[in-house]
Amino acid sequence: MSKLLIVGTVAFDAIETPFGKTDKILGGAATYIGLSSSRFDIDTAIVSIVGEDFPQEHLDLLTSRGIDIEGIEIVKGGKTFFWSGKYHNDLNTRDTLETQLNVLADFKPVVPVNYLDSEFVMLGNLHPLVQLSVLEQIKNPKLVVLDTMNFWMDNAWNDLEKVIKLVDVITINDEEARQLSGEHSLVKAARKIAEMGPDYVVIKKGEHGALLFNKEKIFFAPALPLEEVFDPTGAGDTFAGGFTGYLAQTGDISFNNMKNAVIYGSGMASFCVEKFGTGRMENLEDMEIQSRMKEFKNLTQFDIELSANKAL
Amino acid sequence: MSKLLIVGTVAFDAIETPFGKTDKILGGAATYIGLSSSRFDIDTAIVSIVGEDFPQEHLDLLTSRGIDIEGIEIVKGGKTFFWSGKYHNDLNTRDTLETQLNVLADFKPVVPVNYLDSEFVMLGNLHPLVQLSVLEQIKNPKLVVLDTMNFWMDNAWNDLEKVIKLVDVITINDEEARQLSGEHSLVKAARKIAEMGPDYVVIKKGEHGALLFNKEKIFFAPALPLEEVFDPTGAGDTFAGGFTGYLAQTGDISFNNMKNAVIYGSGMASFCVEKFGTGRMENLEDMEIQSRMKEFKNLTQFDIELSANKAL
Repeated sequence: MSKLLIVGTVAFDAIETPFGKTDKILGGAATYIGLSSSRFDIDTAIVSIVGEDFPQEHLDLLTSRGIDIEGIEIVKGGKTFFWSGKYHNDLNTRDTLETQLNVLADFKPVVPVNYLDSEFVMLGNLHPLVQLSVLEQIKNPKLVVLDTMNFWMDNAWNDLEKVIKLVDVITINDEEARQLSGEHSLVKAARKIAEMGPDYVVIKKGEHGALLFNKEKIFFAPALPLEEVFDPTGAGDTFAGGFTGYLAQTGDISFNNMKNAVIYGSGMASFCVEKFGTGRMENLEDMEIQSRMKEFKNLTQFDIELSANKAL
Repeated sequence: MSKLLIVGTVAFDAIETPFGKTDKILGGAATYIGLSSSRFDIDTAIVSIVGEDFPQEHLDLLTSRGIDIEGIEIVKGGKTFFWSGKYHNDLNTRDTLETQLNVLADFKPVVPVNYLDSEFVMLGNLHPLVQLSVLEQIKNPKLVVLDTMNFWMDNAWNDLEKVIKLVDVITINDEEARQLSGEHSLVKAARKIAEMGPDYVVIKKGEHGALLFNKEKIFFAPALPLEEVFDPTGAGDTFAGGFTGYLAQTGDISFNNMKNAVIYGSGMASFCVEKFGTGRMENLEDMEIQSRMKEFKNLTQFDIELSANKAL
């Protein structure tokens, strides 16, 4: 089985959407990535840091999903990273209400010995220097996927450039792709970002799906049209988890197989938004995943016959 | 060959986008629908009205595309409908700068005798009473498609309800679907609109593609990711023309074939936006259409194997 190493936050979130609000609940990029990628037949480990206030039940949840948590440092007397945000009515935009870095401020990631030979590495949203440090510890990865945010473009541009140069795939949302490239057209943006390093650029458009770019090739995965989106928190990370989990399970990093991977990413993300926080991902049956993949097929597959000598 | 009857404006537009501006150029919903649908192997006619100021060369253009223009009334001494608009920087929104109804104010549509038995009817955006009047003249259509706009929801709600009740398919953009239904979720919006009459609801999301709804079934056609969109004017009408043209050519109005039809609609619309006004549609080779359909296949088709007894 392939090994997938994930680095990212394991954290507390407090979320407000038009449908309600939560107290401090389980959150963090690595949590969502892990809950998603661990649905696949792979070995998954998380490298992260939490405080002494982090409940054992959250760690048990990750372990119960088969995730190796040896790389999650627990800081005695420390407090866990906390983020709180409020979504606007259309759920496409949100305001950050509060960010407490806490133990994350001094995070020095240590990759467990057993995962130093990971074939797949998912660098979840974090300071680029932390991402770089993880990458330097891994021996000879087959595929490295990077997720990042506008915050690092504003505050750590040079470090971000360094890590982008070293990865194979970058996943980023549309506004961030525009900021990173200075191009409004996503086609042009993807090309510029690819020039910075990654062979593959995945642009996430939220409810409008995701685009996969590789040289001149483009593939598009829609988001599943849902009756209600309750909480978009973690959807991008859940997408990344489905994407890397599928690639790690199949071991095939061709463009054709990456198409399937973005469909799995979209499929997993479509569950994530159905309940607050990690609620839906915690209670998700394998058969539901299978059935949702079938929905994606029905949603996108058509059978126009194309022949070279006929106009239409 | 199937007959497709189109009613809608044939008009002058003046357009401003971040890429430039035009003087009065050829425009109008029926123009765009006709230029798109006439690429298919069908008989197309337009019912509309223009003034004496309308250049013969524009009419000749329609005729050269095989479009029957007997139903385009030319009002002596009258002036042609004129619209001018300015797009915002992201090209997703626009302001109307000027609307001159002119001859359109007294438009009494008369369907040419030869098209009274049209199997396919495309009711382009116009006052719902004009759309109704056309529909009443057609004997026994196989499929009626309606396009409309928020303007008629604000100003002619009752008449609009009447025509919506009588059609098989409605094509409408996302914001209009929300206004028409009072639902933010497009899945819920489509269901409510279907309850008003149409079996099929097509929601156009511009650069984010289009959704086709029929009972509980959903299909999604992406927009082609383009390096530049020069002018979105007429894209929705061009979509409707490709959609109805394909259905009319194939004569198959099943949900499965409507999937193909929305792909053709998206494909035709992807050309329309590449140049100002009708420029691209006037100079479009059949082989280019074929080649673009192949791009849509590459963009959306994947080959995940799904098996019932395997989780992933």
